[in-house]
Amino acid sequence: MRIGVDVLGGDFAPDSTVLGSILAYKEIHSDVKLVLIGDEIKIKEICKREHFDSSVFEIVHTTEFIGMGEHPAKAYAQKPNSTIALGFKMLASGEIDGFASAGSTGAMLVGSMYTGKVIPGVIRPTIAISAPNVGLNPTVILDAGINPDAKQDVLFQYAILGSLYSQYVYEVKNPRVALLNIGSEEEKGNLVVKATYQLLKDSKEVNFVGNIEGNELFHIDKADVVVCDGFVGNVVLKEAEAFYHLFKKRNINDEYLEKFNFENYGGTPILGVDQVAIIGHGVSQKKAIRTMILHTIHVTQAELTNKIKEAFKKWQKYEQLLQE
Amino acid sequence: MRIGVDVLGGDFAPDSTVLGSILAYKEIHSDVKLVLIGDEIKIKEICKREHFDSSVFEIVHTTEFIGMGEHPAKAYAQKPNSTIALGFKMLASGEIDGFASAGSTGAMLVGSMYTGKVIPGVIRPTIAISAPNVGLNPTVILDAGINPDAKQDVLFQYAILGSLYSQYVYEVKNPRVALLNIGSEEEKGNLVVKATYQLLKDSKEVNFVGNIEGNELFHIDKADVVVCDGFVGNVVLKEAEAFYHLFKKRNINDEYLEKFNFENYGGTPILGVDQVAIIGHGVSQKKAIRTMILHTIHVTQAELTNKIKEAFKKWQKYEQLLQE
Repeated sequence: MRIGVDVLGGDFAPDSTVLGSILAYKEIHSDVKLVLIGDEIKIKEICKREHFDSSVFEIVHTTEFIGMGEHPAKAYAQKPNSTIALGFKMLASGEIDGFASAGSTGAMLVGSMYTGKVIPGVIRPTIAISAPNVGLNPTVILDAGINPDAKQDVLFQYAILGSLYSQYVYEVKNPRVALLNIGSEEEKGNLVVKATYQLLKDSKEVNFVGNIEGNELFHIDKADVVVCDGFVGNVVLKEAEAFYHLFKKRNINDEYLEKFNFENYGGTPILGVDQVAIIGHGVSQKKAIRTMILHTIHVTQAELTNKIKEAFKKWQKYEQLLQE
Repeated sequence: MRIGVDVLGGDFAPDSTVLGSILAYKEIHSDVKLVLIGDEIKIKEICKREHFDSSVFEIVHTTEFIGMGEHPAKAYAQKPNSTIALGFKMLASGEIDGFASAGSTGAMLVGSMYTGKVIPGVIRPTIAISAPNVGLNPTVILDAGINPDAKQDVLFQYAILGSLYSQYVYEVKNPRVALLNIGSEEEKGNLVVKATYQLLKDSKEVNFVGNIEGNELFHIDKADVVVCDGFVGNVVLKEAEAFYHLFKKRNINDEYLEKFNFENYGGTPILGVDQVAIIGHGVSQKKAIRTMILHTIHVTQAELTNKIKEAFKKWQKYEQLLQE
């Protein structure tokens, strides 16, 4: 297995990314090859400084990258030798099996949908955040911010994508899916959420456990997957970040609350596209990069993309029927 | 000034409500009369037990109340002698100037719109929560859950209602209004939020400071008023409750974080209706009831309802034009 790493992506690159790759290398099986995409001279310099043999990595040299302030689609088109564009080119040609970047989220999405492709049947790809849970496994919250105006069919597909992620990556049997809502009753919510409730209730594919309210998040083990639109999901996840900032400001150190340090998160896959692309947090330091790389290997090994393809075959048939 | 208190409303009534009224009485000016609406025998029993002279209160006797599980509109119609129905009747006749209840939120809304009335020009009344802020004043977040499908004209009016609340009740000069969004840029958000941004940007009535993101809540003093629809507002406020539960479970005691104990909150006014009606939390204990009563007096003294009426005169004219 070959995993590409964007060495120039993230606020602290290339130090964070090379050091993170070194940390990850020490934990991975010999059949995994890390392919570092970035400035060869700098990669070798950093390795040398660390007394680490850079020849264990494969290096694809480039000095071009897409900055955080650039327009993702324009920059992606204008910079074919940027780390992200090269990463997706190598995914498409099969030179790598998974790709991880803490660089521009927008450019990662552009790459996954244009150089890569959306899995047939999937209406809208999504990104899922694995949030802390008092139970054994993290809670997968999706959409984390890509589709702020998602309709019920899209939200219903998020339930399926989230279930597959929870099942194959976190090994949760029959994941419990809850709909984020403003009350426990079926008739609560806005129009889209009410319609989604009906789709989920009638579904045989999803283990739907009903609504979950904001005050049931994080401290009760009620669901493995939480479905919401990208607007609500983004606000929820960023509010958790706000509380983490508060803990730090108030000098509170607590093992469980430390899990809300999203900077240490390993990254989130783009679900619903035909390749393994993992987006890391822009502020990632070496430990977060290490976790992102290990998570990319994990998602690749779980063959999540194939599982999603299989699950969405029925939608593909439906789409074909519509086109006939 | 005469303030009505629903003695039978809330999970711990009538103990919580009578004891809370006694606490409030000790702090109020002699020109404020507390009118306790509820079971006279029980009120007198509890006062006797506390060695407190019940004659300082005016008592309006009834044993009927609207339960939390009842359908608000039906129960309100069928129980004209319930504490909430009596409260709104007394508000309408001018027998009381403000009314506070920790009972059924739904019945309070029904009462405020049917026995009371919506201020001309206001499209949708709202409830605003005063959330903790690291600055001097609480942040007014609205809507807290009444209108989950609010459109841009409604959200724009929330900005005005929230500004008036912040200005006259918390005495904030020229309150800063922010739009809850998923990015700092103008073009971010869902369709409704983008349209609201344009209305706020062009407005001379609102001191609009732009978008606020979830990770800027509670630990940065960025805004006095935060505008969102009732779905998002409800999720945000309940998520803060979830974190408060987490603190308690982790045995964290911190002065600032203790402010997130919404059980101690004094209650929230229904903004946009032509009377002062304050809704308390159902789980209110005596301290929360005390704060709710003091807040009701405060809102009544601030003449908030009159300020809102004046501000909305222009919308009323617009409505008249539409009808002509």
